Amino acid sequence: MRTIYFITSNNGKLHEVQTRLSPLDIDVVQKNIGYPEIQAKSLEEVATYGIEQLRYRVDHPFILEDTGIFIDALKGFPGVYAAYVYQTIGLDGLLHLLDGISSEKRRAIFRSVFGYGDPEGSTHLFIGECEGMIGFEKKGTKGFGYDPIFIPEGKKHTFADMTTEEKNTQSHRGRALEKLISFLSE
Amino acid sequence: MRTIYFITSNNGKLHEVQTRLSPLDIDVVQKNIGYPEIQAKSLEEVATYGIEQLRYRVDHPFILEDTGIFIDALKGFPGVYAAYVYQTIGLDGLLHLLDGISSEKRRAIFRSVFGYGDPEGSTHLFIGECEGMIGFEKKGTKGFGYDPIFIPEGKKHTFADMTTEEKNTQSHRGRALEKLISFLSE
Repeated sequence: MRTIYFITSNNGKLHEVQTRLSPLDIDVVQKNIGYPEIQAKSLEEVATYGIEQLRYRVDHPFILEDTGIFIDALKGFPGVYAAYVYQTIGLDGLLHLLDGISSEKRRAIFRSVFGYGDPEGSTHLFIGECEGMIGFEKKGTKGFGYDPIFIPEGKKHTFADMTTEEKNTQSHRGRALEKLISFLSE
Repeated sequence: MRTIYFITSNNGKLHEVQTRLSPLDIDVVQKNIGYPEIQAKSLEEVATYGIEQLRYRVDHPFILEDTGIFIDALKGFPGVYAAYVYQTIGLDGLLHLLDGISSEKRRAIFRSVFGYGDPEGSTHLFIGECEGMIGFEKKGTKGFGYDPIFIPEGKKHTFADMTTEEKNTQSHRGRALEKLISFLSE
C-alpha cells in the first residue's frame, strides 16, 4: 500500500478522495499544514506555486486541490477568489451583479485542479471543468458554496438540487479526480 | 548616498517615492522583478510574505507597497483584491453592489502598506489609512483606481476631484510613506 498526503483542511474533500483512491490500494492521509496560495488569474498558477512550497516540507508524494468559478459576463470574476467572494458579498451579491443579464450571457465555468507533487521534484496538474450558467435565483439545499446558483449545461437544476451521486458524475472536481486516478493507476 | 530598491512595476508610485526620499540622500532604484502576492485577509500578511521571498534575491535594502480598500457593508470586500476587482466587475459593479445602501453604511477605508526588508533579515511595515465613504456615483477625472468613488471623511469631493497635492496630504499612501520616511531618517 502506497501513502499519499492530501494537503487540505476540508474533511468533505478528504473523504471523497479517500473513497475513490482506496481501490487503488492508496492510503490517503490528511495533512492540514496549509500552504501559501498566491494571487493569480489561474488555478494552475496557484497550484504550481503551492506544490513548489510544499515539496520541501513533506516526505511523501502529496496532492492538493483548488476550485474556482469563472463568470463570462463578469470578466471571469470571482475566478480563483471564489471562496473569498462567497464569504464577503456572497451569492446574493453575485446574483445582484448579474441583474438584467439574460440567460445567454450568464455562462459560467466551474474549474477544479488537483495538483500532485513529490519530494523528488515532480509536478502534475489535473484539470476538470464543468460548463453551465448562473441561475436567476438560489435553488436547492444540497452541496455547498456556489452549488445553489450553478446550473450545469444540459440540465434544468442547480448542483444544490441534485444528489451527490448525480453531481459527482459531471462535476469539475469529479472530472479532475478521474484524471488524477488515471495517472496514479499507471 | 544610500541605495534602496523599490520592487514595483508602477512608475507613478516610483516617482512619488523618489521625490519624497531624495532629500534624505536616498537613491531609490526601481526593480521590476515581481514577487509572489499571497491570498490573505490583510495587506500586512501579503507584504510580510513578499519580503520573505525577496530577501534572498536582492543585495540591498528594499521596499514594496500594496494598497487595498475595505468596505464595511460588504464585509471588507474587495480588500486586498482591489486591483483584481477593479479589472473585473469594476467601479460600476461595486456601486451596483451598494444599491440601496444608505450613506451611513457606505463607510470604507483605504489602506496602504509600505514594507521594508533587507538581506540581513529585517522586516518593517508602515501602515497608512484613510477613512471615508463610497459615493453614490463616480465623480472626478483625476487619480486612478477607486479614486472616483472614494470620498475621504470630512470632505465633499472624491479623491478624483482633488489635486494631487490635496490628495497626497491625506491619502493612505501619503501617510504610510510619512512613516517610512521617519524610519529611514532615524
